[in-house]
Amino acid sequence: MSNSFGHLLRVTTFGESHGPAIGCVIDGCPPGLAISEDEFAQDLERRATGRSRHTSQRHETDAVEILSGVYEGCTTGTPIALLIRNTDARSKDYNKIAAQFRPAHADYTYWQKYGHRDPRGGGRSSARETTMRVAAAVIAKKWLAERYGVTVRGHLSQLGELRPDEHLGAFDWNAVEGNPFFWPIEAQVPALETYMDALRKSGDSVGARVTVVADGVPPGWGEPIYGKLDGDLAAAMMSINAVKGVEIGDGFASVAQKGSFHRDEMTRDGFLSNHAGGILGGISSGQQVVCSVAFKPTSSLRLPGRGLNVLGEEVEVVTTGRHDPCVGIRATPICEAMMALVLMDQALRHRAQCGDVGEVSPRIPATTDKDAKR
Amino acid sequence: MSNSFGHLLRVTTFGESHGPAIGCVIDGCPPGLAISEDEFAQDLERRATGRSRHTSQRHETDAVEILSGVYEGCTTGTPIALLIRNTDARSKDYNKIAAQFRPAHADYTYWQKYGHRDPRGGGRSSARETTMRVAAAVIAKKWLAERYGVTVRGHLSQLGELRPDEHLGAFDWNAVEGNPFFWPIEAQVPALETYMDALRKSGDSVGARVTVVADGVPPGWGEPIYGKLDGDLAAAMMSINAVKGVEIGDGFASVAQKGSFHRDEMTRDGFLSNHAGGILGGISSGQQVVCSVAFKPTSSLRLPGRGLNVLGEEVEVVTTGRHDPCVGIRATPICEAMMALVLMDQALRHRAQCGDVGEVSPRIPATTDKDAKR
Amino acid sequence: MSNSFGHLLRVTTFGESHGPAIGCVIDGCPPGLAISEDEFAQDLERRATGRSRHTSQRHETDAVEILSGVYEGCTTGTPIALLIRNTDARSKDYNKIAAQFRPAHADYTYWQKYGHRDPRGGGRSSARETTMRVAAAVIAKKWLAERYGVTVRGHLSQLGELRPDEHLGAFDWNAVEGNPFFWPIEAQVPALETYMDALRKSGDSVGARVTVVADGVPPGWGEPIYGKLDGDLAAAMMSINAVKGVEIGDGFASVAQKGSFHRDEMTRDGFLSNHAGGILGGISSGQQVVCSVAFKPTSSLRLPGRGLNVLGEEVEVVTTGRHDPCVGIRATPICEAMMALVLMDQALRHRAQCGDVGEVSPRIPATTDKDAKR
Amino acid sequence: MSNSFGHLLRVTTFGESHGPAIGCVIDGCPPGLAISEDEFAQDLERRATGRSRHTSQRHETDAVEILSGVYEGCTTGTPIALLIRNTDARSKDYNKIAAQFRPAHADYTYWQKYGHRDPRGGGRSSARETTMRVAAAVIAKKWLAERYGVTVRGHLSQLGELRPDEHLGAFDWNAVEGNPFFWPIEAQVPALETYMDALRKSGDSVGARVTVVADGVPPGWGEPIYGKLDGDLAAAMMSINAVKGVEIGDGFASVAQKGSFHRDEMTRDGFLSNHAGGILGGISSGQQVVCSVAFKPTSSLRLPGRGLNVLGEEVEVVTTGRHDPCVGIRATPICEAMMALVLMDQALRHRAQCGDVGEVSPRIPATTDKDAKR
Repeated sequence: MSNSFGHLLRVTTFGESHGPAIGCVIDGCPPGLAISEDEFAQDLERRATGRSRHTSQRHETDAVEILSGVYEGCTTGTPIALLIRNTDARSKDYNKIAAQFRPAHADYTYWQKYGHRDPRGGGRSSARETTMRVAAAVIAKKWLAERYGVTVRGHLSQLGELRPDEHLGAFDWNAVEGNPFFWPIEAQVPALETYMDALRKSGDSVGARVTVVADGVPPGWGEPIYGKLDGDLAAAMMSINAVKGVEIGDGFASVAQKGSFHRDEMTRDGFLSNHAGGILGGISSGQQVVCSVAFKPTSSLRLPGRGLNVLGEEVEVVTTGRHDPCVGIRATPICEAMMALVLMDQALRHRAQCGDVGEVSPRIPATTDKDAKR
Repeated sequence: MSNSFGHLLRVTTFGESHGPAIGCVIDGCPPGLAISEDEFAQDLERRATGRSRHTSQRHETDAVEILSGVYEGCTTGTPIALLIRNTDARSKDYNKIAAQFRPAHADYTYWQKYGHRDPRGGGRSSARETTMRVAAAVIAKKWLAERYGVTVRGHLSQLGELRPDEHLGAFDWNAVEGNPFFWPIEAQVPALETYMDALRKSGDSVGARVTVVADGVPPGWGEPIYGKLDGDLAAAMMSINAVKGVEIGDGFASVAQKGSFHRDEMTRDGFLSNHAGGILGGISSGQQVVCSVAFKPTSSLRLPGRGLNVLGEEVEVVTTGRHDPCVGIRATPICEAMMALVLMDQALRHRAQCGDVGEVSPRIPATTDKDAKR
Repeated sequence: MSNSFGHLLRVTTFGESHGPAIGCVIDGCPPGLAISEDEFAQDLERRATGRSRHTSQRHETDAVEILSGVYEGCTTGTPIALLIRNTDARSKDYNKIAAQFRPAHADYTYWQKYGHRDPRGGGRSSARETTMRVAAAVIAKKWLAERYGVTVRGHLSQLGELRPDEHLGAFDWNAVEGNPFFWPIEAQVPALETYMDALRKSGDSVGARVTVVADGVPPGWGEPIYGKLDGDLAAAMMSINAVKGVEIGDGFASVAQKGSFHRDEMTRDGFLSNHAGGILGGISSGQQVVCSVAFKPTSSLRLPGRGLNVLGEEVEVVTTGRHDPCVGIRATPICEAMMALVLMDQALRHRAQCGDVGEVSPRIPATTDKDAKR
Repeated sequence: MSNSFGHLLRVTTFGESHGPAIGCVIDGCPPGLAISEDEFAQDLERRATGRSRHTSQRHETDAVEILSGVYEGCTTGTPIALLIRNTDARSKDYNKIAAQFRPAHADYTYWQKYGHRDPRGGGRSSARETTMRVAAAVIAKKWLAERYGVTVRGHLSQLGELRPDEHLGAFDWNAVEGNPFFWPIEAQVPALETYMDALRKSGDSVGARVTVVADGVPPGWGEPIYGKLDGDLAAAMMSINAVKGVEIGDGFASVAQKGSFHRDEMTRDGFLSNHAGGILGGISSGQQVVCSVAFKPTSSLRLPGRGLNVLGEEVEVVTTGRHDPCVGIRATPICEAMMALVLMDQALRHRAQCGDVGEVSPRIPATTDKDAKR
């Protein structure tokens, strides 16, 4: 069951990085949603390796084939299966990789769990699996937009030590898609380029922080106690490779805040702030839903590190293949995908139980302007 | 389904803060575990309100009654139901509370979701629900200790702006249980007392950070991809009231780290560091499992705040009842509880699928000494 | 997880026959349903032991206490916990029972599974557990009736060799509640009395068949493939103690039928027959949903039988306590309960996925008259 | 979620009869099981259309491709995806079929549920879906045999009015695989041939009954209350297309039995009978597990029947395509498959909770000889 995600919109993924194919089955999608194979291209391209010189150079044409669940261009309510063949899995000798455990990889833990593993390109533990999350979320994003006017978008909010510097320019959602970093301040991009070039030259890697924001989420989504919207988001984000932390709204900054500052006061014209990140008691408040995610630095480095081999001998591990010096750079679409999947699942759960409740008064209007700058 | 937690060890809780009772059903516990009603007292007391002048003054004798699943002092494998009667639910007029929505509370979102709510003491959204998590985890902690030698313990790792100051003394697990803050540096406790006294006088509140550590977890627990050990921990912690962030190992600090620093190198004598927090690829590595949690400041304040009432009119909200100025202070046992429940669930899941794998070579020894100071 | 039933309306039961209490938690009930403690009395009384001289003589006042989830007489959307204290659990020495395994009981299999069991009154394997199914279904029946006009009712359709004899009188739903057998032909009841008196005198027992019918189910409920309405009904009925078979519509009679007979032809005025029992492809057709259930004869007999004790020695087993010579007699409310729970769960699942589909043309009118005589 | 089956061994299927492909994902299989693509051929052939003149004439080479989860010939513990391309989906005009609802088909109910459907060859409601159950169960059967020595096999136990006639010859498992009916009495096969020839000529269809038997199941599998082994079997069998009834052991015959006859007495040498079908209280007893299934007659007939079209007009429906006059004939491997999947899932669940219980005394030996003749 651990390869499935969601309750009513349930996504099951399969496939190894260098096996024959990767794919997913999306169960529970409402009927009547128009969808075609070419609609997957954009988000897959956003996530794709080979986007720029700052990400790894695997050039794979990730063409999605719809195997089921769509008839005459519309979803039928039956499971939607998506398939992508692995075409760029270079044939090479994996014996050496198979025989040793790289520090900070899942090599050792998969071995300890299963006593057996597919070592080719990381096998099942590869970030290649996240491709299917992005593909599945194309459907979720479209349904959320059409049915509820909900949009989900993300940006990089930290790269190593570099944070958005609003002295250089204003936060701008339009800038995000215009640079390879999903960075919201265009004037800062050259500095990021320089930073990454130096990093790549050094053979080292850094972490990153991604922030995802959903606009238009109505109040009421999310199920207390163990099905909270923020609980689901936390699980969703933490399930992405290399993630080490999740925050809702102000997150860890809340620790040092005073209650009189943190609490988002309510007026008839809207909330006066959004420290909560749009979720109270596990349920959406009608404000922007805001979630930030910490990615650790890539562990595959050209710099040698101490590891073990299957015989228990200490070995020096050097990774020579294609690897991103910062996996977080192209994680933005993946984080968006997980939020979209969570929101659609919660929307379905909400109307199952509370479909008769309808709109309740008073409903505080969303205050998008105030929330927009993150 | 949103009031149940876990897959093979499945805890379902029920009850409102000021309803007749709270309780839980624990399904899936292996048979043959000795357990008695008085074993619940210690952890419930650790979590209890009224522990010190720094927490709220509700004095409730939380006596656990075992309703089922235990025969002649041992679990039978059938569901274990635990019940606690609410005895200190002061009779008072809730009409005013019912009619207004306090800022940063779940009042407004419950109302929007259900169109109806139990306003007495926060109803279902009250932290009183967490009592049953602590009770259920008494069983999980005991089973983990007896069956695998696993121990789970936590401490406060930040209180407002105050962090552990190792100049004042060494980190000491023994100190944690000796002060009302679960603080690991005894010499710093007077400073915390002073800080809290000033805070309470001001009528304001602050957040806190709790860190939980599990020792003795064998390698192999956790199920990739969507059933990862860290994914389950993130969901578990985020489901606790007032939590806004979760970190595994170095968490958000990883963002600014270099890969050459972050990766935990492996030797035959153990890992050389534990930035990963004992989890790689969603599976335990055999190191200490480390998770930190951010609690927001209490939103119930004597300081007036802007809210709305059910008629949509703006009102000034002042909370006069018993409330902790820092809910995080007594959250340590709750965070421990959630980690214990996750670990036991994952242990059962692991032996279901991988019960025939057994111990695999090479197994890196745990390096408790190096990990211990957090 | 094996003590929970349903997906969106999820019922978790707990309790042993002679433990302190039995109870359940009902998760997922929509908010706003009026319910009070005294509404449980009728169905519990219908199921109760001690109804007549044909059922066992345990006189227990099964007073239901609502512990949570209801505020000011209405469900709130939070989990509804129901509790019944066991008051008639006679104190006696269970050592003898504990030491031996009765033929055709769960004694031996519980022992083999858990290595440990609560032998008092059958412990968890007792039909006492079904009390909570009936209690939970009071809520489901009420919601189905109020929200969709769906009614669920059942009757005994065979008692040992005795089948409804329409030569003696017409099938009459009104008769069902007027006799202790839930028998639909009033004139036949004296024959049943005589039959049961002779049976009881003989010390032996017989099986029974119960048929449950739901009126008013709209077309579209049920989820193919593994969430079919009939699949859920089969699981639900088979989970009742002593059940050995389940049929939908014509059931096993379909085996010898011709297709030209079995297929229910469709006209604008309705279906011309209902051999399918109101379900096609796992989805309700708008006809009556019909399900029949086979109960085995009670295995607890005064007539001695061959069993084993815990030492593996062969023993002669004689059951002297209170036991029904036909457990199926009072199973009708239990079967109704399970159908109501399945229907409500499926109704919620349907509106989650297909809430936007609405009513689709052409919709064949239900033909209640034609269906009514079963 | 309705396209997934099982809890710890979880099978998710997808695909329409005449879409691009059908497939499944098997999650939770233990690592280390040797499996290759050609091992699927035998059971798929047993189920295949075109086996004899008594089944429909679709000749499709159902070659299974393993897409994931197997490395170097062994399962790795990651999800196993299986794919079969649909190659014999004749291109034809489905407009007429799409526009009308055939009596006793899922056409009408899918339309009512989803407002939209894939009409090609029955779409998702086609029995083609069961191919993937058989494929998935190849893995379950192998694991059960290797790990526990459990075997699962089935036979046809009724064809229309024809029942096994032991006057003609003895029940013989070896005969079952030697004739196109899975019939256990070889001398009776010519009579079945004659019966079917006449039926086909008449344009009509009949139902059938299939019995499946598992040998070697140890005592203790199955989880009370809602996770009973028989409850799972009932759901599993009822989820197969055209099934209208399920029996465990003596099933509906139990209704007219006396308790003194039905109860399976226990001796040190074994049980003296097996009316229970190897399950007591939802848990296996160590005897043969026996389950029988009723299949309705095929509803697709050359004989005209009354139906409706999408405009609500009454139409005469005649089915001209390839259709089995008795779908039950080739259902035996499908029923075996569902039992194998249930057993493996329950085996994993049992060792999760009760892995420490081990073998408990006294264990009654299986009495295979006595059970064998069904």
